[in-house]
Amino acid sequence: MKNINELIPLKIIASGIALPENKVYSSDLDLKFNKPKGFVEKHSGIEYRYHSDYDVPPAKLATNALHNTLETHQISPDSIDLLISASAIPIQALPYSAAHILKASRLKAGTACFDINSSCVSFISALDVASGLLATRQYRRIAIVSSEMASRGIDWSHQESSLIFGDGAACVIVERGNGKSGIVTYKHETYPEGLELCEIRAGGTRKNLRAGMEDSDFLFQMQGKPLFKLTASLIEEFTARVLDDANLAMSDIDTVIPHQASHLGLKHILKRLNIKDERFVNIYRYRGNQVAASIPSALHEAIMTDRYYGRDYVMLLGTAAGLSLSEMILRP
Amino acid sequence: MKNINELIPLKIIASGIALPENKVYSSDLDLKFNKPKGFVEKHSGIEYRYHSDYDVPPAKLATNALHNTLETHQISPDSIDLLISASAIPIQALPYSAAHILKASRLKAGTACFDINSSCVSFISALDVASGLLATRQYRRIAIVSSEMASRGIDWSHQESSLIFGDGAACVIVERGNGKSGIVTYKHETYPEGLELCEIRAGGTRKNLRAGMEDSDFLFQMQGKPLFKLTASLIEEFTARVLDDANLAMSDIDTVIPHQASHLGLKHILKRLNIKDERFVNIYRYRGNQVAASIPSALHEAIMTDRYYGRDYVMLLGTAAGLSLSEMILRP
Repeated sequence: MKNINELIPLKIIASGIALPENKVYSSDLDLKFNKPKGFVEKHSGIEYRYHSDYDVPPAKLATNALHNTLETHQISPDSIDLLISASAIPIQALPYSAAHILKASRLKAGTACFDINSSCVSFISALDVASGLLATRQYRRIAIVSSEMASRGIDWSHQESSLIFGDGAACVIVERGNGKSGIVTYKHETYPEGLELCEIRAGGTRKNLRAGMEDSDFLFQMQGKPLFKLTASLIEEFTARVLDDANLAMSDIDTVIPHQASHLGLKHILKRLNIKDERFVNIYRYRGNQVAASIPSALHEAIMTDRYYGRDYVMLLGTAAGLSLSEMILRP
Repeated sequence: MKNINELIPLKIIASGIALPENKVYSSDLDLKFNKPKGFVEKHSGIEYRYHSDYDVPPAKLATNALHNTLETHQISPDSIDLLISASAIPIQALPYSAAHILKASRLKAGTACFDINSSCVSFISALDVASGLLATRQYRRIAIVSSEMASRGIDWSHQESSLIFGDGAACVIVERGNGKSGIVTYKHETYPEGLELCEIRAGGTRKNLRAGMEDSDFLFQMQGKPLFKLTASLIEEFTARVLDDANLAMSDIDTVIPHQASHLGLKHILKRLNIKDERFVNIYRYRGNQVAASIPSALHEAIMTDRYYGRDYVMLLGTAAGLSLSEMILRP
């Protein structure tokens, strides 16, 4: 294994999540789609997921996760000196989401903030960026919030993708720590041959009032089979490079926290990367795919179920629209 | 002044810009608005700005700036190990813009990338983030690209805001350097009481097909007077805090590179912050407000006109939708 002196210091001092009130059971969707009882649960692997009502402001879900985290851990909002919003889908085209979250929050006016986006692995990118900003002592305590309302982009005419998404938000607070916790290794690779396999085309300069747009441009579009094929062709060697860089084997990793992409995607990763079932954090059955909020939500689950602190190595792992692969090995 | 040992190492090794082909003279807009000759130039302070045709892919402008930079400085695309897209308006809601730029570029597949967004000051946030990632030796050479097609969000029925925007892109390549160049001080503050003063409401989870939207949600909306008032109430004390932190006075700053927000905004900053005219980089007359691409475009202008390298202190300065204030003092 890597020498501990090579760690990039980073300590997660608190975490929390938020979910919308509206629980959508797969049995509800059986009725919606006029399918036999059990059809949606069987095809999606989900018992229920949460969907926000359309009139709830997006920043509300994000601040619920932030405030839950601060309150549970008795952290003063004034002690946060940087807020990073790490979500795939913005709240609006301008201004950036962190400003919206700041406004809805109890953090002090004037707090530094920005957005980081690498679609479903935004949270891992944000952790890495935070480690750099803590290393240069520019900030002492950073809040990272990932919040998604995927339900607002569901194409209900596309069965495969419409069943899997759930809304939610998660927050972690990080500090530099004492140098014994941190990032062992981190790698992000993007293969843009997969760019169009997973997208929402509207929202920015490409599809809009001036350049032209249609209704489908606002809905999540996925080409499941080619996406699976491309990911499958890359993930094993990518993981081997990450583990090799850390001089570790998968059997050394105590807890693996994957992006909760899909039922079959999770099964595939578990098998192909030789991860033991009991080390694999899987919250998919009760959340669905929460886009960028999945990884920090699963990380929070790992913390709450005693699979984070006190362990030697924890891996965050995700594939994301782009197509991007991201893995980070942490010493908790 | 601050001890040089307190610098956060950062060296800009190359820069470049790109502009669309279509030059829009203010005299063209006189005709469009049925105004007397000279009206638009007088009111906007702009002789011409550039607008992209609606059928040009947004990533094309970004990669033009990236490739111009790499070619001019004979930097191999393969030597870039991280691409940061630092723009205010995304290309689309999913996936993130850096993946689009990577796809359109000659950078190698697999290159790490992500977006940073703090609206018009995104480039300054990206420089700061880059300094952290270089400090922890995670990356050696980082390309930052800011690219905007503001013309696609112009509300032509709103005279004040419709005259000022120009499209464009800029790129800088940064490394850690030898420790003699870097960030002397940096501050970002966001005051979200100004959140709604400057916005494009569509594009994400707030206004869309499900939650509801109308045509105006796709266009840039600005409340000029309250925005000016809020900015004016904050900028002097903010700048005093930045200078104080660096133990410098404005007279020590050799070159000031402001966001090119507006004709009157630039005049106001020049006067209120006691900046000497010859030290102030102003490209507004021939570009307009290029959103997040303004600061790196003006930085490139400073480099090309010998007002960057060899100077003691250079300040990047901007106010941005959020409302955010950002200032960074660099030793070139």
